[in-house]
Amino acid sequence: MAELEKVQLLNFDIDQYLKDGDATVAACAQAKAVADEIHEQGYENIFLLGIGGTYDELDMVRYFMKKYSEVEVHLVNAAELNVMGDNRLKKDSVVVTASASGDTKEIVKAVENITAQGIRVVAFTREDTPLGKLATTVISAPVATGRCDFTYLLFQAFALRLLNLRGDFDRYDDYMAQTKNLFQDLVDIRIKFEPKAEQIAKQFAEEPYTIFIASGALWGENVLFSMCVLEEMQWIRTRAVTSAEFFHGTLELVEPGVPVIITKGEDECRELDNRAEVFCKQYTDKLAVIDTAEYAVSGLDDEFRPLVSPMIAAATLHERLSKHYERITKHNLAYRRYYRQFAY
Amino acid sequence: MAELEKVQLLNFDIDQYLKDGDATVAACAQAKAVADEIHEQGYENIFLLGIGGTYDELDMVRYFMKKYSEVEVHLVNAAELNVMGDNRLKKDSVVVTASASGDTKEIVKAVENITAQGIRVVAFTREDTPLGKLATTVISAPVATGRCDFTYLLFQAFALRLLNLRGDFDRYDDYMAQTKNLFQDLVDIRIKFEPKAEQIAKQFAEEPYTIFIASGALWGENVLFSMCVLEEMQWIRTRAVTSAEFFHGTLELVEPGVPVIITKGEDECRELDNRAEVFCKQYTDKLAVIDTAEYAVSGLDDEFRPLVSPMIAAATLHERLSKHYERITKHNLAYRRYYRQFAY
Repeated sequence: MAELEKVQLLNFDIDQYLKDGDATVAACAQAKAVADEIHEQGYENIFLLGIGGTYDELDMVRYFMKKYSEVEVHLVNAAELNVMGDNRLKKDSVVVTASASGDTKEIVKAVENITAQGIRVVAFTREDTPLGKLATTVISAPVATGRCDFTYLLFQAFALRLLNLRGDFDRYDDYMAQTKNLFQDLVDIRIKFEPKAEQIAKQFAEEPYTIFIASGALWGENVLFSMCVLEEMQWIRTRAVTSAEFFHGTLELVEPGVPVIITKGEDECRELDNRAEVFCKQYTDKLAVIDTAEYAVSGLDDEFRPLVSPMIAAATLHERLSKHYERITKHNLAYRRYYRQFAY
Repeated sequence: MAELEKVQLLNFDIDQYLKDGDATVAACAQAKAVADEIHEQGYENIFLLGIGGTYDELDMVRYFMKKYSEVEVHLVNAAELNVMGDNRLKKDSVVVTASASGDTKEIVKAVENITAQGIRVVAFTREDTPLGKLATTVISAPVATGRCDFTYLLFQAFALRLLNLRGDFDRYDDYMAQTKNLFQDLVDIRIKFEPKAEQIAKQFAEEPYTIFIASGALWGENVLFSMCVLEEMQWIRTRAVTSAEFFHGTLELVEPGVPVIITKGEDECRELDNRAEVFCKQYTDKLAVIDTAEYAVSGLDDEFRPLVSPMIAAATLHERLSKHYERITKHNLAYRRYYRQFAY
């Protein structure tokens, strides 16, 4: 569809995206092979290690591992691990981490300590980076532009395979087969979402403050957008809150004119999102709802919808809205006051 | 000191507080006895179950259990547990929860499900409440006014005893003995903090937005104050962020005039707080730092300081600042638009 109609997406190269998507799908075989190897060696528990955006991305992995399995899994912040350690981190743990740049300071330091103890580290990063050189095993796809939707599929190819080998996720092969064309679907989803992205940005991008509500498998993406995009790249004040916690404080801020964006997923927590939506509809006239259920993925079984909902949120809430916010605010997404500009 | 000088604290009844403090210290024996019983029965893992303020209070328990022990401990949100369940929650789990009112909807529902499965629930609440009637065991102190500093000591009397019996916290008796007069110290700390509370409130209470930074054992109290007090009871916009995550997004919002309040603790994460403080001092002129290390607790060994730092934060950041914010904003802390006003 994209090619036929020569559809344009603001600041988005569809051809390059699809090429990168193919590279990501191809790299899933490598992610699977690493999971096979880890399973073969055995492990006591799994530590998902991140900070900032990678912490938020790994939250989705934590969510699905806990949903499908009894496996002991911990999501830890690298800076906190560096000062606190963790009594459950042991010789037979396996640590999973990621860094697009491969040089996130806190993660590199943590991985130095972890590998020095002989603990395995699987890193989603490039081989030729500080993290890539330290990690026991590297998984990477040769993409021109890192994107959450790529990262998520690669994470899942690894994490769901671990679950599959434990007997906790039987339909692994079906899921991977049914997501082979996911990135084509995610182009179509972007195109469908484009007018809505334009409209939300028009309504919200110049607001001094916005409440962002989500839950379950989309919580990480919600924090990532509000913190790593809006706070960091747009200098916009945000309040990310789960749809469960919203009712224990943040709700009191809602009144006509107060901007709220809810991103609804398709997992068990959807009913919590629905409750927040019903409430907010009543008390503010400035509400946008992004519902991943409105966006089709062809040939995907219903039971797999929760698994692709983070990719849909990454494509819509995060990637598309970012570009449209940027257009309205005229604040370049690449500009920083402080972050990585100098030592602090 | 308080009595001799007839010192006044704004909206705070010192005599009643000390009476409630005595009742709390006395109730610690009950908390210990319940821990003895649970240990005797044995347990596979521990679930700390909360929502809103109780979730935030229990975060401190999670922190210290993880710090001192390998014990498997999970902090879960009641609303999320109700929709998602948890594969690690089993017959031999022990669930620990709390509710001052004893009728928090999400917690009552969760505990109904949990006890129906024959899983033990220890509830810090009053016997004659819906939660009190459902729980397997109730721990409570007959206090006139519930306060986080009371709750924390009672939580610790229970949780540290569990650790003590596992061999993970040998000096339990010393710690409990050394905190027998803690609430007298916390009166003195309140008196010492009073001028600072007044000054911070004067400077910050009318700001439309404030960033709140903390970490480690104080993280929960930081969220509790920013969400359950300022958002809920003062309708003030806040952004609570850990000192670790601050450097991955929120820092970009800081510039002259942007209000930041850092609450520094005394545990391993203090160096992360220090880093945030150094940064914020350079880039905003509207910074307040509350440092629990500035407030003495007589006769307390240094190694126990991290354990009492949440009580100090509860007394200063939370309780004292609340009263002084209220005085400045003239917004009654008891007033709500929605919360518990009607069904939603």
